[in-house]
Amino acid sequence: MYTDMPETELRAYRSGQVDPADFDAFWADTLAEADRYPLNAIATRVDCGLSTLDVFDVTFAGFAGQPIKAWLRLPAGTGAPLPTVVQFHGYGRGRGQAFENLLWASAGYAHFDMDLRGQGFSGSTGDTDDDAGSGPQVPGFMTRGIESRETYYYRRLFTDAVRAVAAARSLELVDSARVGVVGRSQGGGIALAVAGLVPDLAAVVARVPFLCDFPRASVITDALPYRELGQYLATNRLRATQVHDVLAYFDGVNFAKRATAAVTMTAALMDPICPPSTVFAAYNNYAGPKQITVWPYNGHEGGAWEDDALALRAFSERLA
Amino acid sequence: MYTDMPETELRAYRSGQVDPADFDAFWADTLAEADRYPLNAIATRVDCGLSTLDVFDVTFAGFAGQPIKAWLRLPAGTGAPLPTVVQFHGYGRGRGQAFENLLWASAGYAHFDMDLRGQGFSGSTGDTDDDAGSGPQVPGFMTRGIESRETYYYRRLFTDAVRAVAAARSLELVDSARVGVVGRSQGGGIALAVAGLVPDLAAVVARVPFLCDFPRASVITDALPYRELGQYLATNRLRATQVHDVLAYFDGVNFAKRATAAVTMTAALMDPICPPSTVFAAYNNYAGPKQITVWPYNGHEGGAWEDDALALRAFSERLA
Amino acid sequence: MYTDMPETELRAYRSGQVDPADFDAFWADTLAEADRYPLNAIATRVDCGLSTLDVFDVTFAGFAGQPIKAWLRLPAGTGAPLPTVVQFHGYGRGRGQAFENLLWASAGYAHFDMDLRGQGFSGSTGDTDDDAGSGPQVPGFMTRGIESRETYYYRRLFTDAVRAVAAARSLELVDSARVGVVGRSQGGGIALAVAGLVPDLAAVVARVPFLCDFPRASVITDALPYRELGQYLATNRLRATQVHDVLAYFDGVNFAKRATAAVTMTAALMDPICPPSTVFAAYNNYAGPKQITVWPYNGHEGGAWEDDALALRAFSERLA
Amino acid sequence: MYTDMPETELRAYRSGQVDPADFDAFWADTLAEADRYPLNAIATRVDCGLSTLDVFDVTFAGFAGQPIKAWLRLPAGTGAPLPTVVQFHGYGRGRGQAFENLLWASAGYAHFDMDLRGQGFSGSTGDTDDDAGSGPQVPGFMTRGIESRETYYYRRLFTDAVRAVAAARSLELVDSARVGVVGRSQGGGIALAVAGLVPDLAAVVARVPFLCDFPRASVITDALPYRELGQYLATNRLRATQVHDVLAYFDGVNFAKRATAAVTMTAALMDPICPPSTVFAAYNNYAGPKQITVWPYNGHEGGAWEDDALALRAFSERLA
Amino acid sequence: MYTDMPETELRAYRSGQVDPADFDAFWADTLAEADRYPLNAIATRVDCGLSTLDVFDVTFAGFAGQPIKAWLRLPAGTGAPLPTVVQFHGYGRGRGQAFENLLWASAGYAHFDMDLRGQGFSGSTGDTDDDAGSGPQVPGFMTRGIESRETYYYRRLFTDAVRAVAAARSLELVDSARVGVVGRSQGGGIALAVAGLVPDLAAVVARVPFLCDFPRASVITDALPYRELGQYLATNRLRATQVHDVLAYFDGVNFAKRATAAVTMTAALMDPICPPSTVFAAYNNYAGPKQITVWPYNGHEGGAWEDDALALRAFSERLA
Amino acid sequence: MYTDMPETELRAYRSGQVDPADFDAFWADTLAEADRYPLNAIATRVDCGLSTLDVFDVTFAGFAGQPIKAWLRLPAGTGAPLPTVVQFHGYGRGRGQAFENLLWASAGYAHFDMDLRGQGFSGSTGDTDDDAGSGPQVPGFMTRGIESRETYYYRRLFTDAVRAVAAARSLELVDSARVGVVGRSQGGGIALAVAGLVPDLAAVVARVPFLCDFPRASVITDALPYRELGQYLATNRLRATQVHDVLAYFDGVNFAKRATAAVTMTAALMDPICPPSTVFAAYNNYAGPKQITVWPYNGHEGGAWEDDALALRAFSERLA
Repeated sequence: MYTDMPETELRAYRSGQVDPADFDAFWADTLAEADRYPLNAIATRVDCGLSTLDVFDVTFAGFAGQPIKAWLRLPAGTGAPLPTVVQFHGYGRGRGQAFENLLWASAGYAHFDMDLRGQGFSGSTGDTDDDAGSGPQVPGFMTRGIESRETYYYRRLFTDAVRAVAAARSLELVDSARVGVVGRSQGGGIALAVAGLVPDLAAVVARVPFLCDFPRASVITDALPYRELGQYLATNRLRATQVHDVLAYFDGVNFAKRATAAVTMTAALMDPICPPSTVFAAYNNYAGPKQITVWPYNGHEGGAWEDDALALRAFSERLA
Repeated sequence: MYTDMPETELRAYRSGQVDPADFDAFWADTLAEADRYPLNAIATRVDCGLSTLDVFDVTFAGFAGQPIKAWLRLPAGTGAPLPTVVQFHGYGRGRGQAFENLLWASAGYAHFDMDLRGQGFSGSTGDTDDDAGSGPQVPGFMTRGIESRETYYYRRLFTDAVRAVAAARSLELVDSARVGVVGRSQGGGIALAVAGLVPDLAAVVARVPFLCDFPRASVITDALPYRELGQYLATNRLRATQVHDVLAYFDGVNFAKRATAAVTMTAALMDPICPPSTVFAAYNNYAGPKQITVWPYNGHEGGAWEDDALALRAFSERLA
Repeated sequence: MYTDMPETELRAYRSGQVDPADFDAFWADTLAEADRYPLNAIATRVDCGLSTLDVFDVTFAGFAGQPIKAWLRLPAGTGAPLPTVVQFHGYGRGRGQAFENLLWASAGYAHFDMDLRGQGFSGSTGDTDDDAGSGPQVPGFMTRGIESRETYYYRRLFTDAVRAVAAARSLELVDSARVGVVGRSQGGGIALAVAGLVPDLAAVVARVPFLCDFPRASVITDALPYRELGQYLATNRLRATQVHDVLAYFDGVNFAKRATAAVTMTAALMDPICPPSTVFAAYNNYAGPKQITVWPYNGHEGGAWEDDALALRAFSERLA
Repeated sequence: MYTDMPETELRAYRSGQVDPADFDAFWADTLAEADRYPLNAIATRVDCGLSTLDVFDVTFAGFAGQPIKAWLRLPAGTGAPLPTVVQFHGYGRGRGQAFENLLWASAGYAHFDMDLRGQGFSGSTGDTDDDAGSGPQVPGFMTRGIESRETYYYRRLFTDAVRAVAAARSLELVDSARVGVVGRSQGGGIALAVAGLVPDLAAVVARVPFLCDFPRASVITDALPYRELGQYLATNRLRATQVHDVLAYFDGVNFAKRATAAVTMTAALMDPICPPSTVFAAYNNYAGPKQITVWPYNGHEGGAWEDDALALRAFSERLA
Repeated sequence: MYTDMPETELRAYRSGQVDPADFDAFWADTLAEADRYPLNAIATRVDCGLSTLDVFDVTFAGFAGQPIKAWLRLPAGTGAPLPTVVQFHGYGRGRGQAFENLLWASAGYAHFDMDLRGQGFSGSTGDTDDDAGSGPQVPGFMTRGIESRETYYYRRLFTDAVRAVAAARSLELVDSARVGVVGRSQGGGIALAVAGLVPDLAAVVARVPFLCDFPRASVITDALPYRELGQYLATNRLRATQVHDVLAYFDGVNFAKRATAAVTMTAALMDPICPPSTVFAAYNNYAGPKQITVWPYNGHEGGAWEDDALALRAFSERLA
Repeated sequence: MYTDMPETELRAYRSGQVDPADFDAFWADTLAEADRYPLNAIATRVDCGLSTLDVFDVTFAGFAGQPIKAWLRLPAGTGAPLPTVVQFHGYGRGRGQAFENLLWASAGYAHFDMDLRGQGFSGSTGDTDDDAGSGPQVPGFMTRGIESRETYYYRRLFTDAVRAVAAARSLELVDSARVGVVGRSQGGGIALAVAGLVPDLAAVVARVPFLCDFPRASVITDALPYRELGQYLATNRLRATQVHDVLAYFDGVNFAKRATAAVTMTAALMDPICPPSTVFAAYNNYAGPKQITVWPYNGHEGGAWEDDALALRAFSERLA
C-alpha cells in the first residue's frame, strides 16, 4: 500500500529542512582538511576467475588519510581510458567480492566500486575500518558520532566518497572527463552528496535515495535505518534540536540544491524505508537537469532491474 | 539458531523416503513422450547494452512441446564451442532480464539460463507459460496438479529442465561434452533431478537444494514453499498417502540415488526453508562422486558468494 | 482501528474505475460462447447423516463446458419448487462437505452451493478443477491468466457463476422466479458480478464484497488477496496499465452499474482485506434498489451472524 | 511443523500430573453443594427464521444456583424424546445465536448447546454472567480465582456443565438414557471433566481437548490460553506449587482416569495450542473404551469437518 | 512514526465525547454510597531491608467497603506530617514490593502507593481482589461489567482511588493540605478522574493518560488495552451505543472539565497505546491551571525519567 | 515455553568453550597496560531533588585512560565508609539519571553505578564515549573490534569495570574491604568477568548473565544481542574459527573458573536471550562458593524483584 502522499502532492513537496548558513564553509573545510592527505590510489590486479573482465583491488586515502578499499573492474584488456561509473552501496553493504557486481564493467565502463567504512555486515562483505570513536549511540551508523557535525559518521563517509571520485580519476584507465556516480538507497544518498560537492560529474543516478529530508523522514516511518534516529531521540529526549542541527549538514535536500550534473532519480510509492516524499524533497530541490521515475507498486526495491536499465541508458547518453 | 539435527547426525541421516518400483519407468515414459516433440531450439541475438558479453534469446520445446524461454550468454565474439553452464532458478523466479546474472559468462562459460514455466513473480520476471489446469490447489506450485504424478507441476518442469540440457547441446557454441548444471534452492532440486535423469553431465552444483525428502520436509518446517504441502494436507486430510505417493516420483533423494556426475553441494545449519537434514538426505544417497560444504551460521542464503566461488572452482576443474 | 475513510466520505465516494466501452459486448460474447455448451445439470442424492435435510451432489457445465460441482440442500421431503438461494464462497474456499453450511436450507430455501474452480485450499475443500494454463503469476488466483481479459481466471469463474444460476433454475425443485444470490468477500464480489449479468434475480446479498474498485484496492491495502495484484505489478512494473485495463472488465463497480435486483450490502470500517471504500465504490454505483449496513468495529468478518440475519430477512421479504 | 513428540512417544506418554488424594471428595462436595439449588430448567420456544428445526431458549441453575443459558435445538415438530447431544464450546465462545450451529439437530438429535459463564467475546456471543470476584489475575479465565481450588473459575464452569447434562435430561424431549457430550478445545476439556463426573453418559467426543496435563502444557507452549498460566507464574514466581496444587483438581488427565463412557478423541501433531502430548496424556489415562484419531498436518483446527464426521459416526453408533 | 494528528491540530482538538446530564449525580451517588463504609485505614510497618525509608503496609475500605491495599513510604524517622504523593499504576500493574518505587519518598514526600483491584499480572504484583462478577467480557478490565455504568469495573476502581486520597489524609504523617496525585497511562487516567472528583488537591500529574476520549480512542488504535473495547464491540455489534453511553461516565475528558487543581500532563506523538489526540482531548478540556509537555519521538513510554523530573518539579512547586 | 534443556541436564552441563593457554597472561597484560593511567576518580555532588540520599557524579580513568562516568549514591549525610555495591548495566543501558536506581543506597550501601562506554541507547541514557574504531561490524557492540582480542569492545569494557571497582575503593566513603558487584544480563556477564579478574570481592551477584558460553549461545538462540554474532558469521563465513578464538578470552565460563568470591546467580528456563544452559555453563564452572536460583516460568526478566530480594539478602550477609 502507499506509504506516503499521493503523487500530485509529492510533485509539489519541498521539505522543511533548513539550509545552514555555513553549510558550504563546513564542507569546504572538511574536504580541505582531508586534502592534506595525498590520495595515494593503488590498484593491484586480482585473479577472481573472470575472463571477460579485469579486476583490481584498490586502496586510497579517505577521510583523515585512512585507507579505503575499492574494486576497479574493466573489460579485459582495456588499453585506453574509459568512461567510468563510481558506485556507492546501500546501508550495511560493503564492496563484496571481486567477482560480484559485474553489470557496469560488462557494459563497457570502468567501474569503481567503493567500500563503506565499518559497513559490510549484511548482503556483502566489507574490508574497510571506520577509525573513530563515538558517544553513546544506537546500534548502526545513523547516530555514530552524532554529538557534533565534526564527529558524525557521514562526515567521514561522504568525504571518502568525494575522494573516491578523485581516486578513480587518478587512475590511468579512467577518463576523468566522463565520470558518473550511481547508488541506491544509502548509495543514492551518497551520490547526491557527491553531486553537491563535486562540480564536474557527467551523470548522477540516485535510486530510491536514503539520507534525505531528515526532519520528515524521522517521523513518518518506523523502518530502519531512519528509525535509528527516532530511537536515539526517544532516549535523548532533550537533544532533538541539536541532532537536527547536525543532520542539516548531511541532508540530501541541501546537497541537491548545490548539484549541477544531470540526475536520474527513482522513487517508489510503497517504500516504507525511504518514503517517496523524502526522495521528492531532494528531487524537487535538485538544481541541475533532472528526471525522476515513479514506481507505484514497489517498496524499497524500487525499479530494481528497470532502474539498472534507466542507469544504463543515462550513462550511455551522458558518458559516451 | 540451528533449525535441525547437529552435524554428526546429519552425516548419518538417510531419509525415510521410499523408492517407487516404477520410478525409472515413469520417467523414461515421461521423457519419451516429450521427445515426440522436436527440441527446435532457436537463439536470437538481443542488444541489452553489454559489450563484453553476447546475449541470445532462446526458445525451445519443453514438456508437451510447449515453448520454454531461456537466455544464452557468452563472452562477446565467441567463435568456438564453449564449456557450458545450464542454470535453474529458485522458487518464484524467472529468467529475468538479458543483462542480469552475468557471472558464468564473464567467467568464460556459455551460460544457458532456463526460464521456469509459470514462475517469475518474485525477484525476477519470467516469460514462459505453464499450459495446464489443476485441481484445487494451495496458491503456488507445490500442489499444482498434485492429484496424480502425471498432472503434477514438477513433472512438466523437470522435463523442461532435462530438455534444456539437450537444447543447450543442440546449439552451435555449446560444447556438448562439457555441460554442467547449477542451481540453488528450487534450482538445486532441479539440478539433482537432471543429474538423475541425464547420464552424461560433467558437473552438478546443488546449493541448499529444495525438493528433497518430502516426508520429513513436510513436517519439520513451517516455512514456504514446503508449507504449501502441509497446508494442502491440512485441508485434504484424507489424501496424505496419495500425495506422498506422488511426491516420491519427484524427490531429490530418489534422483540422487541414480546420479553419476560429480556433485558439489552446500547446506546451511540455520536454514528453515530447506532444513539441512533434507539436503543431507539427498547428499547421503547421492550415487556419484560428491562433496558438501556446511555453513553453520547461515540460513537459506547458504554460502551466497562463497557458494559462487565453490561453483566456479567446480566448473573450472570439471568443465575445463 | 479504522482502515479507510470516515463514513461521511464513504457515502460520497464514487471510485475512479473506468467503464470500458465494450464491457457489455465482452460479457455478452463470453456468456454466448459458454452457452454453446448445454448446462446439463445433474443432481444425485447423497447420504451424509442428516435427517432434516436432503442433500444432492450437483454437476453442471460451466465455462467452456467444464464440469462444475455444487451441493443442493433442501428441507427433507420437499415436493414442490422452493424459493432458492445460490451461494458463492470466499477466496480459497470450496463447497466443502455435504453436511456443512446448513442455514439456508434449514430456513426453508433450496440452497445451491456452488464450488469454485481450483479453489478449496483453506477452510473448506473443493472438488472442481480449473482447466486452464497461465502465464507467470503470483501464487493465488488474482493474477492467473491476467495477461488478457480472455484468459483471466475470473472470466471463467464469473461465467461459472452465471451458469450456476441457470443450472439451479433448470432443477425441478427450484422455483425459477424466486432466486436470490448471496456471498461474502469473494462470494460477495461474485454475487455483484452475477447481479450485473443476470437480469431477473429476486434478491442479491453482497457481504463485505471483494473484487471491487481495483484501482484503489490495489494501493490502499497490504492484505491478501488484493496484495497479489500489487505483488504482480511490483515485479511486472511495465504492465500496470495493461493489467488495469483487464481488471476493468471484472470490477464490481462496473457490474453494480448494470444491476437491477434489490441488493443488501455490508461494509466494515476496520476491514483491511476489503476496505470499506472499495465496498462503497460498488454500493454508490449500484443501479438497483439498495441498502447497506455499516459495522464500525469489525474487520473482514463484517457482521458475521448479524449479516446472516440480514440475509435471512432480505430473502424472507423478497423470495417469499 | 510438528509441535511436540513423534507419534510413537505420544502413544507411550503418561503425564506427570499427580492425582490428589481428595480429588473425588472435592468434586463430590462441590456437586452436592450445587445440588442444593434445584435445576429449574425452563425452555422457551424462539422464532429465529428456521423451518426444519425448533429452537428453545433454555435457562437452568448452575453453580451456586446462578442462571445459565443454553439453546435446545430439535427437528421441527419432534414429538417423542430424542437421543441428545450436549455441547460445550471452545475458549472465548458463547452459545451464539439461535440459528447457528445446526449440525446436531439436523442430524436428528436433540442438541443442548450450553453457554459458558462470562465467555462469549470471540467468534460467538454469550448471555451468561460469571458471578464471582477474583484476586489479581491474568486477563482471561485460566487464572480467575486461581488462588484456591474453591474459587477457581473452572470449578464453577465444570459444575455448570455437569448440571447442563442433568438439565437436559430434565426436559421432556430428551431421552435421558441416550445422552452424549461433545466439545472441541476447551469444550473437549469440559467434555472430559463431565465424563469423569457423570457416570452414565452414552458417548463422549473430545476433539483436540484443552485443560489437560497442566504441568507439561504450561511449559511447552507459548500459545494462549495455556500461556495465561505461564504469565501468571512469571509474575507470581513464588506461587508455582500452590497453583499446580489447585490445577490438579481440574486436569483432564485426572478426570480421564475416572471416566467410563466410550470416548472418541482427536489430536493434531502441529497443534501449538493444545499440543498433542497433553491430549495423549488424557487419552492414555482414559479408563473407558477409547479411540483416537491423529491428524498429522493439522494445527488446532484438528480434523474440523472430519472430526464432525467422526462425531456423527460415534453418536450414530452409541446413541441410536 | 507519528501515530496521530500533527501538533497544531492536537492543540485545537476538543473531542466528540458527550457530557451526560447526570454525570455529577451519578458520581455523587456513587461516592456517597461508598461513604457508608468507614475508611478504616490501617498502616503496619514492614521491614523490607531499606534504611533510608520507612515502609508501611496499608489497608483501607474502598468501593463497597472492600479491603484495598497500599504502601506508605516515608523518609526514615519522619516525625511530622509531610506533603504527600498518591500514586496510581498503569494497566496490569499492582503495588508491587515494599522496596520498589522509591523515588517519591526519597525526594522527601510521604508516598501513598495504591494497589489496583484485580490487577497485578504484569510488571508488578498486586494484593487486592476485585470482588464482583461480570457479564461476558473480553479478557482484561476494559469491558468487565460494561453492561451498565453501575457494574463497570472502573466505577469501583475510581471510587477506590478517591478513597485512597481520603485514606492517605486520615494518616498521621500525611499533611492533608498538601496532597498531590500522580500516575502514568491508566494511572494518569485515574489521576484525572480523582482530579474531577476530589476538589482540594494541591497538584495533579497525568503522564500519557489512558481512559480519555473513548469514542475516538476506540477507533484509531489497535493497541491494547483500548483494543479490548473494539474487540467487545466486534462481537457485540448491536451494543455500541449502550457501551458508549456507559463509557461517557468514565471518560477523562469529562473529569477534566470538572477539575480545578493545577495539572502537569505529557503526551507522546508516537504513542499508539494512548494516542496523543486522546490525551489532548482531556488536556484541552481541563478546567484548572494546566501545562503539557509533548515528546515528539516517544511512544507510550512518554518522557520516562524526564516525566519523573517534571513531576518532581511540579510537586516541589505546589506541595512545598 | 522452555527455551533450552530440562533442569537436570542444565545441572550437569559444562560447556564446550576452551580455556586459552594464555588467558591469564592476556588479561594481566591488559590490566597492567591500563594501570599505566592513574585512576583519578573525581566525585562531584549533584542536586537531583532527593533528600534521603546524596548523589555524586563520578569520573575515573578507564581503558587507555579514557574518562568513564558513574554515579555514587549514598544515604544522606554518610560520614563513615560504607559497604559498597558496584553495579553494571544490561546491554544498551547507561547509568541514566542521578535520581534513578535508588534501591542499593536506600538499603544503606554506597552504590557505585558505572556507565558503559558507547551504550545508553535504550531504557536509560549514557554519558561515556567509546573511543575506538572498528572494522566492519554488525550494528551493536557484540562484534565491534572483533577482528582481534586486542581490539574487541569487551576488552575495553571489562577493563573499565575492573577499574570501576578500584575507583570506588579509592573514594573516601567506600569501605574497600566490603565491596560487592551486581549486574543482570550484560551486567551479570561483566560481574562474572570482574569476579575472575579482581581477587578480593566480598560478594558477586550475576542475574541471568549474558556473555557466557559463546560457542553454544551463538547457535541456540535467534534473540539479540547473541544474534549479532550469528549475523556477523553469516556474512563473514570464513572467519568463524578466528571469531571464536577471540571470544574465548571474554567468556564468562572462563572467568568463572578463576573466580573466588561467593556468587549468587539466577537463571530462567524460558529465557531466549540468555538461554539457561549458557548461564549454567558459567555456574557449573564457577570456582568459588555459589548458589543459583532457577525461575521456571520466566523469560529474560528472570526473578526481577525477587532477584533484587536475593541480592539484598546476599549483600546483607556478605557485606555486613
